[in-house]
Amino acid sequence: MEETGKTTRDEIAAQTGLLIAAVRDARPLVQMITNYVSMDIAANVLLAAGAAPAMVFAPEESPEFVRRASALVVNTGTLSAPGAQAMEVATIAARTHGVPWVLDPVGAGATKFRDDTICKLLRHRPAVIRGNASEIMAVARLAGLTQEAGAPRGVDSAHETSQVEGLAQKLARHGLCTVAATGDVDIVTDGRRLVRLANGSPLMTKVTALGCGLTGYVGAFVGLGVDPFTATLSALAAYAVAGDMAAEQAKGPASFRTAFIDALYTLDASDIATRLRVA
Amino acid sequence: MEETGKTTRDEIAAQTGLLIAAVRDARPLVQMITNYVSMDIAANVLLAAGAAPAMVFAPEESPEFVRRASALVVNTGTLSAPGAQAMEVATIAARTHGVPWVLDPVGAGATKFRDDTICKLLRHRPAVIRGNASEIMAVARLAGLTQEAGAPRGVDSAHETSQVEGLAQKLARHGLCTVAATGDVDIVTDGRRLVRLANGSPLMTKVTALGCGLTGYVGAFVGLGVDPFTATLSALAAYAVAGDMAAEQAKGPASFRTAFIDALYTLDASDIATRLRVA
Amino acid sequence: MEETGKTTRDEIAAQTGLLIAAVRDARPLVQMITNYVSMDIAANVLLAAGAAPAMVFAPEESPEFVRRASALVVNTGTLSAPGAQAMEVATIAARTHGVPWVLDPVGAGATKFRDDTICKLLRHRPAVIRGNASEIMAVARLAGLTQEAGAPRGVDSAHETSQVEGLAQKLARHGLCTVAATGDVDIVTDGRRLVRLANGSPLMTKVTALGCGLTGYVGAFVGLGVDPFTATLSALAAYAVAGDMAAEQAKGPASFRTAFIDALYTLDASDIATRLRVA
Repeated sequence: MEETGKTTRDEIAAQTGLLIAAVRDARPLVQMITNYVSMDIAANVLLAAGAAPAMVFAPEESPEFVRRASALVVNTGTLSAPGAQAMEVATIAARTHGVPWVLDPVGAGATKFRDDTICKLLRHRPAVIRGNASEIMAVARLAGLTQEAGAPRGVDSAHETSQVEGLAQKLARHGLCTVAATGDVDIVTDGRRLVRLANGSPLMTKVTALGCGLTGYVGAFVGLGVDPFTATLSALAAYAVAGDMAAEQAKGPASFRTAFIDALYTLDASDIATRLRVA
Repeated sequence: MEETGKTTRDEIAAQTGLLIAAVRDARPLVQMITNYVSMDIAANVLLAAGAAPAMVFAPEESPEFVRRASALVVNTGTLSAPGAQAMEVATIAARTHGVPWVLDPVGAGATKFRDDTICKLLRHRPAVIRGNASEIMAVARLAGLTQEAGAPRGVDSAHETSQVEGLAQKLARHGLCTVAATGDVDIVTDGRRLVRLANGSPLMTKVTALGCGLTGYVGAFVGLGVDPFTATLSALAAYAVAGDMAAEQAKGPASFRTAFIDALYTLDASDIATRLRVA
Repeated sequence: MEETGKTTRDEIAAQTGLLIAAVRDARPLVQMITNYVSMDIAANVLLAAGAAPAMVFAPEESPEFVRRASALVVNTGTLSAPGAQAMEVATIAARTHGVPWVLDPVGAGATKFRDDTICKLLRHRPAVIRGNASEIMAVARLAGLTQEAGAPRGVDSAHETSQVEGLAQKLARHGLCTVAATGDVDIVTDGRRLVRLANGSPLMTKVTALGCGLTGYVGAFVGLGVDPFTATLSALAAYAVAGDMAAEQAKGPASFRTAFIDALYTLDASDIATRLRVA
């Protein structure tokens, strides 16, 4: 497995600090087709980051809307047949107009319906796939890269990210995309480079849809037009550092959530420089 | 009306303490088909309690998914025709696979559409029905047990739980289920036993969907496999004690909500032992 | 352009204080057909204000339900074809039963689908239209009152409210309704009177759906049965003053949101008397 090589911790921190500021300057418009559980928090994550979220999914309007978006984010949670159709239409339009899109394959491996939907979406070539370890394993199986089931526990991961490093790299090479698997340690790879990030708090798993919010946040960074691997790596680094900052204030999951959104709003290059941990 | 008899306050407190810990140990997977208003808070309630929520409702996948769930929760708020169909399919599957399910009949009595939907769902035999007093009265009417309309005010109760004790017991016996009506005083009955719980804060009515969150929380306790009456009683006791704890911190409904979720996360047997009030 | 004339700042403050108390006394039932992003916060805004929100939208039940509502609020965010149909049915029923309704034309000007839907809704005569400056400009164009596109940036405003004062007045006269455009300065007009309000915090734009929550809040005031211009003016004044109060407590958007809902709950006539700023 090829490693990050010359990309040092300090270089990642510096790049992340730049991109946090760039999101605030550029205010990328991020179109989201996300699940109902995550709508409030995903929109609030993007607003706190300085981006402009827009939840637009109707097939009647999403192709028209996506042309003006900087990125599209598609999330398969609370899936329905009309929702799957909306994702299909929107991702085709994104490809047509050269708008990068990010896939959050929530529940991949949990049911045949999720798997069928995700299979179809993969054809439209996401720039980034971000999931938990079980979801990444399941997507790799859907891409024909493994026999392992990647069966999640409900919609939660039943695996560690260390178990899917090789598969994530294969999937990235296969899809010519960036793959991120998040958990206690987050991994990001473009098939060649692979970085492990060690920030974040266990409380992040106790707030619903914080992973979905992360995928939206990745969309904001990807919407800047920089290389998707760099964008994804910086987004994951910033998000997890905000998690560290929030955990220092929190008495439980709800005060954590409040502190976390506030931290995303105030986060700057010096926070990253001080706190980033590359494993 | 038969009373709780030998079930003493201390026994209820002890049992509740045990089940709070058991939810954290077992992490029951609770499938929820709930209304759009409640999705965020219901998921966060379950995560704070240590359970694993999964919002899965598409008829294409919910029968496959429910087999792995410890409990299913169905809530008729923000009802739609496809939603009613999804509930029908999921509850049939739950019955087929022996997965207990909990009904939250939001808006029962408010419109013919709600009543028709709830009538159909009752055929699939919920293990627990949890509503406000007007909703329980309306469900009892739908079951042919009373002529009283149970007309709510919008989706809020127009009755006190003390007005529906007899009906709740009849409904429990009729449906071979546990019935809980919540309000200033919460009542829980299996048709034979009836307990009144007196914890909780008026601020709980000022946070949207906290009742829906409670029904999800009941699902987590029912998912432990213990007797549904005991599970429901413990869930209601724990939830209301967390309400007391949060009210001591709150400046208004939103700070109450934050403190409440945090309290569910930290709540333990000693909190219940100290604070539980059985009326 | 005709100005507010004799309506002084102190008169507005006094009226606002009265209506805040009247909402708590009357607990108006506000039926909402709102977007999925806003459901949680809009319901919580209404509960904090003392009103009774009900998210009821199915065509099977909304005409039956709206008869008992004090006001109906319709919001075109996260639009879908079934959603547009639900809005059509509900607004017709509201008109039939003499229930005032409030339109929040989210995303007007963003896509043809939004515009077509809003055009149809305008026929059913809202009592109030509340949007950002770009949305009000777009609605005025849909009503044939301007050629200006009013193109928003995503679903955010690309204009200042000062740019749409004349159009808002034209739209109000054309539709025999009250029009409110909110932004750094909020304007309210019935076509004859026009008031500019200068309270509020930039953090309000960093919390998702706070504008949708405002439209719900306007619905509560309109539901009191007073003149819609007076109701809307008071609702906007109270909401923005609560924003000022919350901003003094906030460390970022999420702590702002908590403080804001708490402020709506405690807000009284003296807060308005002290803080209201009419521009």
